[in-house]
Amino acid sequence: MIDKLIKKIQKTGAPIVVGLDPTMKFVPEHIKKAAFEEKGETLEGAAEAVWLFNKAIVDSTCDLIPAVKPQIAMYEQFGIPGLAAFKKTVDYCREKGLVVIGDVKRGDIGSTSAAYALAHLGRVQVGSSLCAGFDEDFVTVNPYLGSDGVQPFIDVCKEEKKGIFVLVKTSNPSSGEFQDRLVQDGVTAGAAGEGTGEISFSGRPLYEVVGETVAKWSEQFVGENGYSYIGAVVGATYPEQGRVLRKVMPKSFILVPGYGTQGGTGKDLIHFFDENRLGAIVNSSRGIIAAYQNEKYSKFGSENFADASRQAVIDMITDIDQAFAGVGR
Amino acid sequence: MIDKLIKKIQKTGAPIVVGLDPTMKFVPEHIKKAAFEEKGETLEGAAEAVWLFNKAIVDSTCDLIPAVKPQIAMYEQFGIPGLAAFKKTVDYCREKGLVVIGDVKRGDIGSTSAAYALAHLGRVQVGSSLCAGFDEDFVTVNPYLGSDGVQPFIDVCKEEKKGIFVLVKTSNPSSGEFQDRLVQDGVTAGAAGEGTGEISFSGRPLYEVVGETVAKWSEQFVGENGYSYIGAVVGATYPEQGRVLRKVMPKSFILVPGYGTQGGTGKDLIHFFDENRLGAIVNSSRGIIAAYQNEKYSKFGSENFADASRQAVIDMITDIDQAFAGVGR
Repeated sequence: MIDKLIKKIQKTGAPIVVGLDPTMKFVPEHIKKAAFEEKGETLEGAAEAVWLFNKAIVDSTCDLIPAVKPQIAMYEQFGIPGLAAFKKTVDYCREKGLVVIGDVKRGDIGSTSAAYALAHLGRVQVGSSLCAGFDEDFVTVNPYLGSDGVQPFIDVCKEEKKGIFVLVKTSNPSSGEFQDRLVQDGVTAGAAGEGTGEISFSGRPLYEVVGETVAKWSEQFVGENGYSYIGAVVGATYPEQGRVLRKVMPKSFILVPGYGTQGGTGKDLIHFFDENRLGAIVNSSRGIIAAYQNEKYSKFGSENFADASRQAVIDMITDIDQAFAGVGR
Repeated sequence: MIDKLIKKIQKTGAPIVVGLDPTMKFVPEHIKKAAFEEKGETLEGAAEAVWLFNKAIVDSTCDLIPAVKPQIAMYEQFGIPGLAAFKKTVDYCREKGLVVIGDVKRGDIGSTSAAYALAHLGRVQVGSSLCAGFDEDFVTVNPYLGSDGVQPFIDVCKEEKKGIFVLVKTSNPSSGEFQDRLVQDGVTAGAAGEGTGEISFSGRPLYEVVGETVAKWSEQFVGENGYSYIGAVVGATYPEQGRVLRKVMPKSFILVPGYGTQGGTGKDLIHFFDENRLGAIVNSSRGIIAAYQNEKYSKFGSENFADASRQAVIDMITDIDQAFAGVGR
């Protein structure tokens, strides 16, 4: 699947992924009106509005982009009907030939992580049948529980030729609260944490240690182009950390959130890529799907929200191209 | 909701929670047969089997216990039908007066965390209506993304008088890989992690730093009995760390997984409690719900699996009582 993603990036010339994170405030009034008239101001109505919104944006942009990244929380908030809209969106995007990255940030231990992996990337045994629950191409995974939590995902990836992106350095302002803490190099087994006194060691931030662990995991399953099925998430808002992590995880594709609304710019992104313009894929959510609400695209009007999204994709590709041109790539 | 949980613990004399984590291998053949005959060897069939299994166990144990903890991964693996069985289980347990802890381990940033919080603890705005997606009483939350990720849950907790348990030290063997790393005391802003050389500081493990942060969060919302709506998860398999964390987070109730099958014993649990036998609630999943598969309870037979579960609950209460008696509480 990493090979498919790379081929699609090369074909479109667009190392970008559109974040399908529809909240009610992004959905134009005429879509909500139609959905609520049919299904009421209910979870079903919200789910229908989300689906109509997504479908229009996908139809309008799918020839320009390699991938989409639906954020499952935005669907889960609408309960079972919302999750059904998530599944419908995933299935529709795959039909359209897009690579689907399920932004689920799941992570647990042992058999529980295995259940999440089967839910989103694999197939579960029911009697003598194998059934797929959601069936994305990639998912995002939280590493806080360590290898026990991540290995079950890797095992399913090998089985299904799918991939994961492990959270390493997230794009939010408080991501440093734990991720930036300088840590010891090795693990002190059984450190009870009381009265350990002064310890001298070379401190590296936790995200770098997590990045090194991702690099080790990534060796397990490498595609034909040299990049692994096991990638990482590093926020566009932390370009300097991106530069370090690009080197720490040479085989890991980096999924880069935080471009646009969160403050990341095209120039910030360069460090996440290798010299062949590969190795990273940049997400934009609100900047694309709610482009029509941005003054820059207001001429489209809310009726033509999907055309505004298309223009925003074209502008994002140009922004990244210009940043590459600036460094002669 | 923390007050309701404590009252129920005091009434039942059982600081325990039954983990409703049904995998197909725990569900007795006669239940699977009935479900598959009705709905086929499909996701719907699996979900029906899970629901029938859960209902029997809840009916058989609900007078003995204060709370249940369904692990959503075990339902999510069966896709939309599985998640519908999760919701049905949550609703049924709440009808029975049980406190429901959704073990969802969600965690994201800003508006995305807010969406998860609304999904599981709150109500989402649809037009002029407020709709609840899943509606548990508590959920578990992953702290890797820092305060941005957790605060939206706390805000919804305040609004809905519900609670969370934040992962601090998990019960799995590899939990130390990141959680036990000794870390610096403060956050070094902008630490790029290269060539920092030797740094001297008092190192405490990351889980303790996370525990201190939970203690700060917990101050925001304290119940009438002195315990906060903001609790923590600490594995029974790490009793020494439990002892430290009990002191670090004096107002946080501790949800303790890892008893039984994962190796934790009654004796290990004492340190997680305060002197009034409060402050902790111990989870057992497989040990209760699949008790009939354990040689100790084989006399019940698979037809009477729910009676075996009831006996296993009684034995677990006795085990904890004896451990308290051993230290004179």
